[in-house]
Amino acid sequence: MLEWVRGPSVIAFVLSVALLCAEMLALAFATPLLRTKRNVWLNEEDAKRFEGTVADVEERGVARLIRVHRNQLENFAPFFALGALWVALGAPTRVGAGLFVVFAAGRTAHVAFYVLRMGRLRTASHTLSFLVLLALAAGVVWRALAA
Amino acid sequence: MLEWVRGPSVIAFVLSVALLCAEMLALAFATPLLRTKRNVWLNEEDAKRFEGTVADVEERGVARLIRVHRNQLENFAPFFALGALWVALGAPTRVGAGLFVVFAAGRTAHVAFYVLRMGRLRTASHTLSFLVLLALAAGVVWRALAA
Amino acid sequence: MLEWVRGPSVIAFVLSVALLCAEMLALAFATPLLRTKRNVWLNEEDAKRFEGTVADVEERGVARLIRVHRNQLENFAPFFALGALWVALGAPTRVGAGLFVVFAAGRTAHVAFYVLRMGRLRTASHTLSFLVLLALAAGVVWRALAA
Repeated sequence: MLEWVRGPSVIAFVLSVALLCAEMLALAFATPLLRTKRNVWLNEEDAKRFEGTVADVEERGVARLIRVHRNQLENFAPFFALGALWVALGAPTRVGAGLFVVFAAGRTAHVAFYVLRMGRLRTASHTLSFLVLLALAAGVVWRALAA
Repeated sequence: MLEWVRGPSVIAFVLSVALLCAEMLALAFATPLLRTKRNVWLNEEDAKRFEGTVADVEERGVARLIRVHRNQLENFAPFFALGALWVALGAPTRVGAGLFVVFAAGRTAHVAFYVLRMGRLRTASHTLSFLVLLALAAGVVWRALAA
Repeated sequence: MLEWVRGPSVIAFVLSVALLCAEMLALAFATPLLRTKRNVWLNEEDAKRFEGTVADVEERGVARLIRVHRNQLENFAPFFALGALWVALGAPTRVGAGLFVVFAAGRTAHVAFYVLRMGRLRTASHTLSFLVLLALAAGVVWRALAA
């Protein structure tokens, strides 16, 4: 194992990444289930296979799940990049652990609030994780310039 | 070079990542080519430049390529994150190599089956790579908690 | 800090990643602002909250920002993966630094040209960063096989 694999930020980072990946996998699992139920398809071969309707725009409930997934991915990619650099650059490990946990909690809440159609809380949870990404970006730039 | 750069999982990971990135680049290359051929554009400046039609929804063939690309990206991001953690945390290197190769094969097949409109095989290849991501997530959580 | 955190490629990589993440955060910030201004919503709960219109397709200006964001993400994910492997595998550090800077400049220009509706320069900047990704992919494969 790598020598740097110690400190609270590493375990918090690994667990946060695994949780967020599991949530994206759950969304990737739920979307085709709902699409099958609604039986509206963008792929002609699927419409034929399930004897459903072809459309150029996803059914509204399916489109919501796709938006949730896209939003998670848009936030996960910078989180993984900045979090990995934070750990690798040796930025403060307790601060990092706190930021990772807050981000994972904010994004998990975001999925729930989005699916439950709770707009204000969805915006609040999005803002929370957005601020964490800003803090991570500032931290890695500071570490890189100080190195 | 880093001392950890050895073992079958590292070379399998690097080659899988490079292959999957090359496939995404191929999709990013094919999409505007097909859009030019169909001459239907979402950007007004492109419609003007190529004397084509403006639309609010992509032409059906172009939309398919964009869905393939999105699906690859949705799977690549957790694969890279979990795979990099697998290697960095020193999880079993032969198991890792096997998982990485199966994932890369599954995703490569997914692109082919999606473009060729073979729905059942597309679903099967998606399921295969989905199971690999679950295994990778379980592995990194186990390693992080055991560390 | 990790011992490998030295050399021009590391600092160029960290600053490129931070800049590209900041640009994606700016897009994630601008999109809902513009959507609020146009007052056309895909989520029924938002339309109700802001007394706006529900639609199945995003308003055209909002859709453009979402396309810019998607394009950035599609390019950022392979860049981060291949760039991190380039650094970790000990590929040439000066070449890496140059490639990272060119990529970041190309993608930053791409955002500007896309928003400003300058189609030809948008395509040119996209091509530039595309070629960098090909070079990074070739470099990491060569290093992995040579290791």
